[in-house]
Amino acid sequence: MTILMKIVKAEILTIGDEILYGQIVDTNSRWLCERLAEEGIRVIWKTTVGDREADILQAFHYAQKRADVVLITGGLGPTSDDLTKPCLAKFFDSPMAIHEEALQEVTEFFKSRGRELTELNRQQANLPVKCRKVTNRTGTAPGMWFDDGQVIFVSMPGVPHEMKVIMNEQVIPMLKNRLELPVIHHSIIRTAGIGESFLADKIKDWENALPSNMSLAYLPNLGQVKLRITANGSDREALKTEAEEWIKKLSLIIPEYIYSYENESLEIVVGRILREKKLTLSVAESCTGGYLSHLITTVPGSSDYFLGSMIPYAYEIKKSQLGVRPETLEKYGAVSEQTIVEMAATVRARFNTDIGVATSGIAGPGGATAEKPVGTVWIAYSDKRKTVAKKLQLSTERLLNIQLASVAVLNLIRRELID
Amino acid sequence: MTILMKIVKAEILTIGDEILYGQIVDTNSRWLCERLAEEGIRVIWKTTVGDREADILQAFHYAQKRADVVLITGGLGPTSDDLTKPCLAKFFDSPMAIHEEALQEVTEFFKSRGRELTELNRQQANLPVKCRKVTNRTGTAPGMWFDDGQVIFVSMPGVPHEMKVIMNEQVIPMLKNRLELPVIHHSIIRTAGIGESFLADKIKDWENALPSNMSLAYLPNLGQVKLRITANGSDREALKTEAEEWIKKLSLIIPEYIYSYENESLEIVVGRILREKKLTLSVAESCTGGYLSHLITTVPGSSDYFLGSMIPYAYEIKKSQLGVRPETLEKYGAVSEQTIVEMAATVRARFNTDIGVATSGIAGPGGATAEKPVGTVWIAYSDKRKTVAKKLQLSTERLLNIQLASVAVLNLIRRELID
Repeated sequence: MTILMKIVKAEILTIGDEILYGQIVDTNSRWLCERLAEEGIRVIWKTTVGDREADILQAFHYAQKRADVVLITGGLGPTSDDLTKPCLAKFFDSPMAIHEEALQEVTEFFKSRGRELTELNRQQANLPVKCRKVTNRTGTAPGMWFDDGQVIFVSMPGVPHEMKVIMNEQVIPMLKNRLELPVIHHSIIRTAGIGESFLADKIKDWENALPSNMSLAYLPNLGQVKLRITANGSDREALKTEAEEWIKKLSLIIPEYIYSYENESLEIVVGRILREKKLTLSVAESCTGGYLSHLITTVPGSSDYFLGSMIPYAYEIKKSQLGVRPETLEKYGAVSEQTIVEMAATVRARFNTDIGVATSGIAGPGGATAEKPVGTVWIAYSDKRKTVAKKLQLSTERLLNIQLASVAVLNLIRRELID
Repeated sequence: MTILMKIVKAEILTIGDEILYGQIVDTNSRWLCERLAEEGIRVIWKTTVGDREADILQAFHYAQKRADVVLITGGLGPTSDDLTKPCLAKFFDSPMAIHEEALQEVTEFFKSRGRELTELNRQQANLPVKCRKVTNRTGTAPGMWFDDGQVIFVSMPGVPHEMKVIMNEQVIPMLKNRLELPVIHHSIIRTAGIGESFLADKIKDWENALPSNMSLAYLPNLGQVKLRITANGSDREALKTEAEEWIKKLSLIIPEYIYSYENESLEIVVGRILREKKLTLSVAESCTGGYLSHLITTVPGSSDYFLGSMIPYAYEIKKSQLGVRPETLEKYGAVSEQTIVEMAATVRARFNTDIGVATSGIAGPGGATAEKPVGTVWIAYSDKRKTVAKKLQLSTERLLNIQLASVAVLNLIRRELID
């Protein structure tokens, strides 16, 4: 039996001059789009208006005509250029009154921080009587929920972490309770070491065989491709089981490229492998200039396995500090298989770690030769059993080359350790 | 004489399902907002719709009623889900025809890359006859300019770098030619080493004395504050002179905090000072884990002054590789004035550079003690004349601490070199 479910349509409305002036990036609306898609709500329209009453009311009016749910962020502060609340009161023709519970919450919030409640802040508990208050436990401006039986309007503060907490803890459960949403199951499979079109080609038979209630999206970023499988149906557990079966089939086709089924970053996965195997790591990075070490050390607790790095940026430092033999450098140059192999082996020996890795290349824009154009990068991995080197031909952009080469080294470590 | 000029209102319309699904961030619209503000055009509304004809036509209709200029990005590719061109043809009731010059351009584009023109690509030269073609010299889909004497509609590809080239080289000059725009002069002054509220307090008399045609915006980011002065009037040269006089006054109030009048990054400014003074730099970074070196090496040509780094992440490596004396580490700990001073001096000596800098601290979340909470970071600068150390108390967030400490070191180098 197929249940035909009405699609729930949402509009996201962002209010604030600072966005129209280009002073800040509106990261909220992208997060909301993703979050709503996860719950099976389709965002059909996104609008941004400034701090002007006529435009805000006009935007409410249009949104009411086309959406089932209108999610509003911004314009909720206590100052006079914050117009969302008075506009909502006008739009829903609602008087205002101090909301006792909201007043208690905002008083508590200030008290817990050892601060006095000012009259300006007290006014944050003054809400349109037709709304249901939505508690903002990490800030002072409460959210508001208006429901006339046709369209739901939700207003939230524009501060990203306040908005996210309110959405996850309150608005999403309230929407699930109020609306009949489709059951949707998302799976993210992260891959590295293969480009989008090659990956698509490798898994095309699998993709074509997916049942009609499952769809696949390719999300490429910096040498990695995330695969998102979206399954919809009516029974959550059955969907999960079905998705897992298809992912199992996928994992047999491209085992070497998949590094996470949990949407974790490559540096987290590599870190966990090193910790589990009780192995230590050192890095000698030249063209990546510190970015590879930075990626590794963004992970909390990375000091458990990462002991340190040498960045021998200058030719002379490669000899004097890292200890690459002058003969090797002179005969083959800094960007060569011979040098990269020595760099990885030397840093491993000097830092007394189980594994040493290295990078050396032409990040650009300067430094290129006819045989070594911008984007030529050598990377290497060394442990007590073996040393592996790999030549990459990346892009013409300096920063992109730095990022791609660093990701390639992380993936090289992963591949060597799981083999 | 005051000329009362009509404000030119713009709407930005972004087309594409991938934005509503939250799969990509719409960086174009923010860039457009900033770029238009620079030219004195006020963005009053921003809209995003998906790849559905009815929504696109509806968005055209609303935009036409409220804006003088409508800038459209996205939906211009050659595949069937790209609907912007057929929707524009429908909206302006225009037949389509192959545009000879556009066909020549797209043919040339493929030829220069050694590729054949397919029928699908040929269709990119098929344009509504009522539009003026806008050349896209870095891509294959031409832009379109519709002007009915009332409202101007401009359609551009969604690929960020193609859109930016088209805007800067063609659309902005065309808009200036067609519309009477106010003369606006923007100045950006970059500061580091002082928080927004302290800065505002220091310059409040200056700010209050600004004439009514000049306004000031504070744009804080990662331990730095950009000041943007916007001046408007009727004579470009006079405005520039007026702004320069006010900036000169400002530079006398906060000379030590200003690092650029040209909107350059701190790493670029520090790099230029080092190059001009013919000084070389080395880095010993512990808690910043490579990020400081990464910032320095994002600058093309940084190998002229940056020789290399040591990242002695583990306690043992601080001794064995960098050469910090065991007595210092044991007596004072890794996060101390004594250790940081030795780190900076030692890396300078070992790498044989004019300047050595160092970082050591508790990035978090682990590693804190009662006296050294998360966010405690020591930084140091050493040259042949002196060594300077500084203790920072940063945040509770790991990544933010890494970034703030790195920026603080760059600013420390700048301050020591300009004194």
